[in-house]
Amino acid sequence: MRHPTDPGRYLMSRSRAPELVQPDDILEFTLDSQSVKPTDVRLYGERVIHGTIYQTRPDVNAVCHHHAPSILPFCISGTELKPVYHLGATLGEKVPFWDARDDFGDTTLIVATPEEGASLARALGANWIVLMRRHGATVAGRTLEELTFRTIYTARNAALQIQAHTLGHVSPLNAAETELAGEYNLRPGPVARAWEYWNVRLDKAEGTWRPKNANLRAKKKSPPKRKTKSRRRG
Amino acid sequence: MRHPTDPGRYLMSRSRAPELVQPDDILEFTLDSQSVKPTDVRLYGERVIHGTIYQTRPDVNAVCHHHAPSILPFCISGTELKPVYHLGATLGEKVPFWDARDDFGDTTLIVATPEEGASLARALGANWIVLMRRHGATVAGRTLEELTFRTIYTARNAALQIQAHTLGHVSPLNAAETELAGEYNLRPGPVARAWEYWNVRLDKAEGTWRPKNANLRAKKKSPPKRKTKSRRRG
Amino acid sequence: MRHPTDPGRYLMSRSRAPELVQPDDILEFTLDSQSVKPTDVRLYGERVIHGTIYQTRPDVNAVCHHHAPSILPFCISGTELKPVYHLGATLGEKVPFWDARDDFGDTTLIVATPEEGASLARALGANWIVLMRRHGATVAGRTLEELTFRTIYTARNAALQIQAHTLGHVSPLNAAETELAGEYNLRPGPVARAWEYWNVRLDKAEGTWRPKNANLRAKKKSPPKRKTKSRRRG
Amino acid sequence: MRHPTDPGRYLMSRSRAPELVQPDDILEFTLDSQSVKPTDVRLYGERVIHGTIYQTRPDVNAVCHHHAPSILPFCISGTELKPVYHLGATLGEKVPFWDARDDFGDTTLIVATPEEGASLARALGANWIVLMRRHGATVAGRTLEELTFRTIYTARNAALQIQAHTLGHVSPLNAAETELAGEYNLRPGPVARAWEYWNVRLDKAEGTWRPKNANLRAKKKSPPKRKTKSRRRG
Repeated sequence: MRHPTDPGRYLMSRSRAPELVQPDDILEFTLDSQSVKPTDVRLYGERVIHGTIYQTRPDVNAVCHHHAPSILPFCISGTELKPVYHLGATLGEKVPFWDARDDFGDTTLIVATPEEGASLARALGANWIVLMRRHGATVAGRTLEELTFRTIYTARNAALQIQAHTLGHVSPLNAAETELAGEYNLRPGPVARAWEYWNVRLDKAEGTWRPKNANLRAKKKSPPKRKTKSRRRG
Repeated sequence: MRHPTDPGRYLMSRSRAPELVQPDDILEFTLDSQSVKPTDVRLYGERVIHGTIYQTRPDVNAVCHHHAPSILPFCISGTELKPVYHLGATLGEKVPFWDARDDFGDTTLIVATPEEGASLARALGANWIVLMRRHGATVAGRTLEELTFRTIYTARNAALQIQAHTLGHVSPLNAAETELAGEYNLRPGPVARAWEYWNVRLDKAEGTWRPKNANLRAKKKSPPKRKTKSRRRG
Repeated sequence: MRHPTDPGRYLMSRSRAPELVQPDDILEFTLDSQSVKPTDVRLYGERVIHGTIYQTRPDVNAVCHHHAPSILPFCISGTELKPVYHLGATLGEKVPFWDARDDFGDTTLIVATPEEGASLARALGANWIVLMRRHGATVAGRTLEELTFRTIYTARNAALQIQAHTLGHVSPLNAAETELAGEYNLRPGPVARAWEYWNVRLDKAEGTWRPKNANLRAKKKSPPKRKTKSRRRG
Repeated sequence: MRHPTDPGRYLMSRSRAPELVQPDDILEFTLDSQSVKPTDVRLYGERVIHGTIYQTRPDVNAVCHHHAPSILPFCISGTELKPVYHLGATLGEKVPFWDARDDFGDTTLIVATPEEGASLARALGANWIVLMRRHGATVAGRTLEELTFRTIYTARNAALQIQAHTLGHVSPLNAAETELAGEYNLRPGPVARAWEYWNVRLDKAEGTWRPKNANLRAKKKSPPKRKTKSRRRG
C-alpha cells in the first residue's frame, strides 16, 4: 500500500509467501521501487507493478497483484471478465487486458523493468483491474479495505461467470447497475461487515483465534493485535 | 425467523457476517422492518426481504437470503433451477425468477425499500424459493429446521444440476415425485438426523466441539449450550 | 456390513449422520431388515437396500448406499459411468442404472419396501455398483476394505470422467484392462496402504490424532482404539 | 530422489501413503530397483518408474509419480497439456503421452517390470513430464526443489487449462516464452519463496506448526526439525 503519511513512498513485504509475512518483513520503497533503506534481503522482482501505478494514479493507495485460480482462465482464454452479480460490480464497467507480447515480444512474462511497469499501468488506465495475459491480475483501490473487497469479490465473480458460461448464457450487469451497485458495495456498512469477517478468518488461519468463551475470559488481558494484517497489504 | 410467540414481529441479527453473529446481536423487528427498541447499531439494508415475506405469507416462519456459489450461476444465466435428486425435491415444483429491472429499472440490485420487498414477495408467490437475477436467492420455510434443510439441499441440488448439464442432459424429478419426495424429506426422521449433524458442524467450526472421549468426561459438568445456533436463523 | 459370524444377520447404525455414529449406535438386523432386539430408536428407512442385497448376493459382505456429489450427475443425466483410470477399474466393467419409475411409477424415490429392495437388487445383478436415477449409488463388496476402496475410488473416477468429458473425449479402460487393474487394486498391498491412510484421516477428523512426537511418547500407554471405524460400515 | 552422494542409488519410501511416511520408512535402492539391504517390508510395485529414469537420465535427481485430479483428465481424454501461465512454463514445451497398450497390450496399467519402466523412460525422453494414459503422470527434476515446483505448478496449470477450455479458448505460452519463464521460475528467489511456504504447510498439516507468538517463545529451545520433508521425495 502507499505509505500512509508520505504519498511518495509505498510499503511492501520482502519476497516472501503472503501467508508467512510478518510485520518485520514490510519494507519502504520509493515510487521508482528502490528500497529506502539499503537491504540485502531478497525483494519481489515485480515491485515495479506497484510503484508505477502509485506514480501514475494518485487516487490509488493500495495495489494487489495475484494469480487467483478463478481469474486465470480469463487471462488464458481472453474471455472478457464482466460483473455478473451485485458484489462483483466493484470490478467496474471495463476490465482491460494487457499482453506482454504487444510491447515486448517474447519475455519471461514477469513485469520487472520500469518500461514493463509503465506499459501495464497504461493498460490499466483509469480502470480498477487489468488482466495480464497468461499471467494474472493487478487490482487497485483507493483504500486497503476497498482493494481487499474488490480483489476478493472479483475472484468470486470470475468463478460464477465461468459456471454461468457452463450453463450456456451470461447476462451481466449493465453500465448503470455496475456503477450503482459498485458504489453501494463500498459504503461503510458493507465494507465494515466484510472487514470484520476477514480479520476473524485471518486469526483462525494464524491459530490466534479462540472460541468465544475463551475470548471472553481473555478479553481484559491481551490487547488487540492486528500486526498480522500486513499480509493483506497489496 | 418470525418471533416464536409474537407473529407480528421477527428476529434478525444486526448487520454482521453470519459466522460471527452472537446471541446479543439478535434484534427484534416489526413486520415493516423497524427495530422494536431504538438502536444505533448498523442494521442490514435488506431486512425488508424478510419483513415483507412474513407480512404476505403467514405460513412462513423463517426466511434466508443468501448468495451461495452454486445458486448464482442460475441467477446469472437465467437457467431454470429444477429438483434433480430426491433431497432437492424440497425446493418445490417451481422456482420463479425476480428481476429488479422489471419494476425498478437500473438499481443497486439491493432490495431495500418496502416497494422492492413487496415486488420480490409477489414474485415468490406461494413458492418456497425465488431467484433474484444477478444477485442471489431468498428461501422460505414453515420452521427454522425446514428452512435450513431447504436452503442447504437447494444449494447442493444446484451444484449437481450444473454438473449434470456438463454431462449433456438434465433429467429432473416430475411434479408427482417432487411432491412425494419433498414431503418425505421434511418428516421428523430425516430432519432430526440432518439437524444433529449441522449442530456438530457448527460446534466444530466454533471450536467448541471436543473429541468423544473428552465429551464423555465433560458431560456432567457443562450444560448443553445452543446459543450459537442463532447464526442459522434466516 | 454382514455380521462377521452369522451370515443371516447384518450390522448397521441407527438413523444417524455417518460422521456422528458411535459403537453403541450399531444394531443387528435380520436379512429382512428387522431389528434383532426390540428397539425404540429411529431406524434408517432404506435399510432394505442392505438386507435385500445380503439375501440375494451371498458373496457380498458389505454394502454402502450414498449420494456422493461426483456420482449424482451420472444418476441425473443418465450418462454411463465407466472406469477411466486404473484405480477406477474396481468399479467393474458395467454399472447398471435403476429407475424407481420403471417398476413403481411416481414415488418418494426412497427404497423402503421389500419389493423396492428386491427390484434394486435385481438391477444390481452380479455387478458391484448400481446407480439409482435421481437418487444416488449403492455399492457392494466382498469385504469392508474392498467396499471402502470401491466406494471412494468410484467417486473419484466419476469426478475425473466429468472433467475429461469437459475436455471433449472420454477414453475408458477396455474390458481386459478393467479386469486386470480391478484385480490388482484389491491385492493386499494396495488395500493395506489405503486402509492405513483412511484410518489416520479418520483419527484426524475425530480429533484423536496427535503429531508424531506426541504419538511416539504415548505409544506405550494407550492401546490402539479402532471403535470409530464403525462409521465406515455400509 | 537419487542418493545425494551415490548416483548409482536412489531413496524411496516403503509402500506407504505419502502423508504417513516417516524417516524410518525411507529405503535405499540400486538403479535396477532392488533394495540395498534385505527387507521384508512391502515395497512399492512401481519403483521401476524411478529406477529406470535415474538410469537413463543422469541429469535427473528427483522423480515424482502421481495421480493428481487435475492431471488425470488429460490422461483420460488425450488432450495435450500445455503451459498456459508463467508458473506452468516449468512443465516444458512438450509433454509426451505414454500408453501401456502400445508396447504391452492389455495390462493392469501398473508399471512394474523393467521393460515397462524402460518403455516409459523412452516416452519421457529429454522432457520433464510424461502423461500415462488412464493412469497418471511422472515428473522429473534436477533437484528436489525443482521437482516439487514442477509437480505442483503443473497440476495447477492443468486445472487452469481445463477451466480456460470451458470458457472456449486456450491460448498457451509460445516456445520462447516457455523457455524464458520456465528458466525464471527455477531461479533461487522464486524457488526459495515457494519452498519456505511448502515447509510451513507441511508443519501445519503435521500439527507441528505453532502460532507466531508461540514460535517466538520456543525459538531458543527446539532445534529446527525437517525430517518430515522426506514425504516430498519422489
